[in-house]
Amino acid sequence: MRVALDVMGGDYAPREILSGARKALKENSDLFLLLVGPEEVLEKFPSHERVEKVPAPEWVEMEEAPAEALRKKPRASIRVALELIKEGQAQAVVSAGNSGATFGAALLTLGRLPGVLRPAIATVLPTLGRPAVLIDAGANVDCKPVHLFQFALMGALFSERILGIKRPRVGLLSIGEEGGKGNFLVKRAHALLSESPLNFVGNVEGRHIYSGEAEVIVCDGFVGNICLKVSEGVAEALGEMLKREVRRDPLALLGFSLARRALSRFRHKVDWREYGGAPLLGVNGVVIIGHGRSDARAIKNALFTASRFVKTGLVEKLRLSLSAERPDDLQVVS
Amino acid sequence: MRVALDVMGGDYAPREILSGARKALKENSDLFLLLVGPEEVLEKFPSHERVEKVPAPEWVEMEEAPAEALRKKPRASIRVALELIKEGQAQAVVSAGNSGATFGAALLTLGRLPGVLRPAIATVLPTLGRPAVLIDAGANVDCKPVHLFQFALMGALFSERILGIKRPRVGLLSIGEEGGKGNFLVKRAHALLSESPLNFVGNVEGRHIYSGEAEVIVCDGFVGNICLKVSEGVAEALGEMLKREVRRDPLALLGFSLARRALSRFRHKVDWREYGGAPLLGVNGVVIIGHGRSDARAIKNALFTASRFVKTGLVEKLRLSLSAERPDDLQVVS
Repeated sequence: MRVALDVMGGDYAPREILSGARKALKENSDLFLLLVGPEEVLEKFPSHERVEKVPAPEWVEMEEAPAEALRKKPRASIRVALELIKEGQAQAVVSAGNSGATFGAALLTLGRLPGVLRPAIATVLPTLGRPAVLIDAGANVDCKPVHLFQFALMGALFSERILGIKRPRVGLLSIGEEGGKGNFLVKRAHALLSESPLNFVGNVEGRHIYSGEAEVIVCDGFVGNICLKVSEGVAEALGEMLKREVRRDPLALLGFSLARRALSRFRHKVDWREYGGAPLLGVNGVVIIGHGRSDARAIKNALFTASRFVKTGLVEKLRLSLSAERPDDLQVVS
Repeated sequence: MRVALDVMGGDYAPREILSGARKALKENSDLFLLLVGPEEVLEKFPSHERVEKVPAPEWVEMEEAPAEALRKKPRASIRVALELIKEGQAQAVVSAGNSGATFGAALLTLGRLPGVLRPAIATVLPTLGRPAVLIDAGANVDCKPVHLFQFALMGALFSERILGIKRPRVGLLSIGEEGGKGNFLVKRAHALLSESPLNFVGNVEGRHIYSGEAEVIVCDGFVGNICLKVSEGVAEALGEMLKREVRRDPLALLGFSLARRALSRFRHKVDWREYGGAPLLGVNGVVIIGHGRSDARAIKNALFTASRFVKTGLVEKLRLSLSAERPDDLQVVS
């Protein structure tokens, strides 16, 4: 299993990225890593029989405009990493860097699977029921109804073939449960999905993402990314507010120390670092987008996610299913 | 202080609404309520010297299409309630009913303040810093840049004049902090806001709503409503997941019983029921939109919010400020 890792991607790159690589190598002896980044950074990583260092003199900063950065930096680490897939040297790429640049570089280097109009990021979320796939989590900010239709298709395939959920329920994220509710985009997407062979359960509201009412949640990348960030923000703020209350109250402090183990199991369950990155579905290769704030643990889990996706044949399954299930007139309904 | 209450609005109407009215009358002796609903419902409410019963034979169901419902039901409780403002019999209206219908009926009955293109719902959120106003929380699903510009203006006035926050920081909800990030709508709104006299701090990400990085969060009503619902969903799911972990562990159960008081203070602080409804800004009158799931406590707090808004002269302040601060070419920049 050969995975290329962009060591310059992420808020805490390269330190946490390299540390995550070390952890992953230790815990998984099947993993062969291609570390991609500037030579002076790679030098610091100790030699390892399952590591190859691939020099890339440039990198895209987190806050750079993706298109411009890719144009100006043809030898950026993310591009070099993706080319390793194309050349057959790597089976997957992991990057926690500028996700717009990863998306753009993947399109340029790997291209789309046949029939796919817009590749999209699929993020797996813990819920009170089964895990839910939110798609698109941020790749496409301005979408047409047909794009949402394809996100639903890819998300359902992912849920069924990779997460093993039979006939996953597909919900369209909106602001009311009736088909007539939502903005212009969502209303038209609702009409398309209603006529699809998917197990479409109609609109779902934001409140229902985490209650487990659908296994696939479809939205445009602007809304999807905001949902994810709001979720993180709420969890962090609630945690902080709770801490403040507990600190003021000696009895509560004692109580929380007794509940230590349960609290740690809980944190583990809801921590995005455990979920290890989100695949970019619809490109011709396994590309895992890590959270920008990834630490070593998140990177390790993203590398494991990548290797699991390669093993399950994610891309081949998507390629076959999309060509089989895609309505012939997909281009027309946009 | 005369407030009209739509007793048929809300998932738990009329029972919880009437029970909220009773609580509010008991706790606030300045409050005079006009209860609006079908006679057979109002009959059950005991006579009270500070209550007038106003019969309305029809009502809009929570799931009805607003425009059609208003056309078919000219004597719906929400319309009758709003007419009481127009006739000078009430100073404010509270409804936890179909918010689309409340919005539509307010436009029809009260009209907009001069210069306002689209009235919007302003929801006050607890944060780690000062309270933040999220606007629009769901009234306008498809917006133009100039609408977002006006939401910012109204939200800032509300924050400054009603919440007492000096030069509130105004943030535009987007998926990256740089001005170039976001969808088409947000990018154009960013340009408009950058040239405004507001204390515009640029884009804010979903994660920063609750960390208190801005006192006014501007977005379209589709995104805003999803943010609110996702926030509720995350809080509920986290609470439930935590409960499940604690229940499995006797020591944690004991610990949590010791922390009971701190937990209850915490819940109180983050409970939307305490925040008592959101004003519809930009219409010619005080209209408070309650949460659809309002119970008696939420209704009581919404009535108190309404009376506070009347006392602080919300509508007059908005009218004056909008006419003073509105750029002359507002219609042009759309």
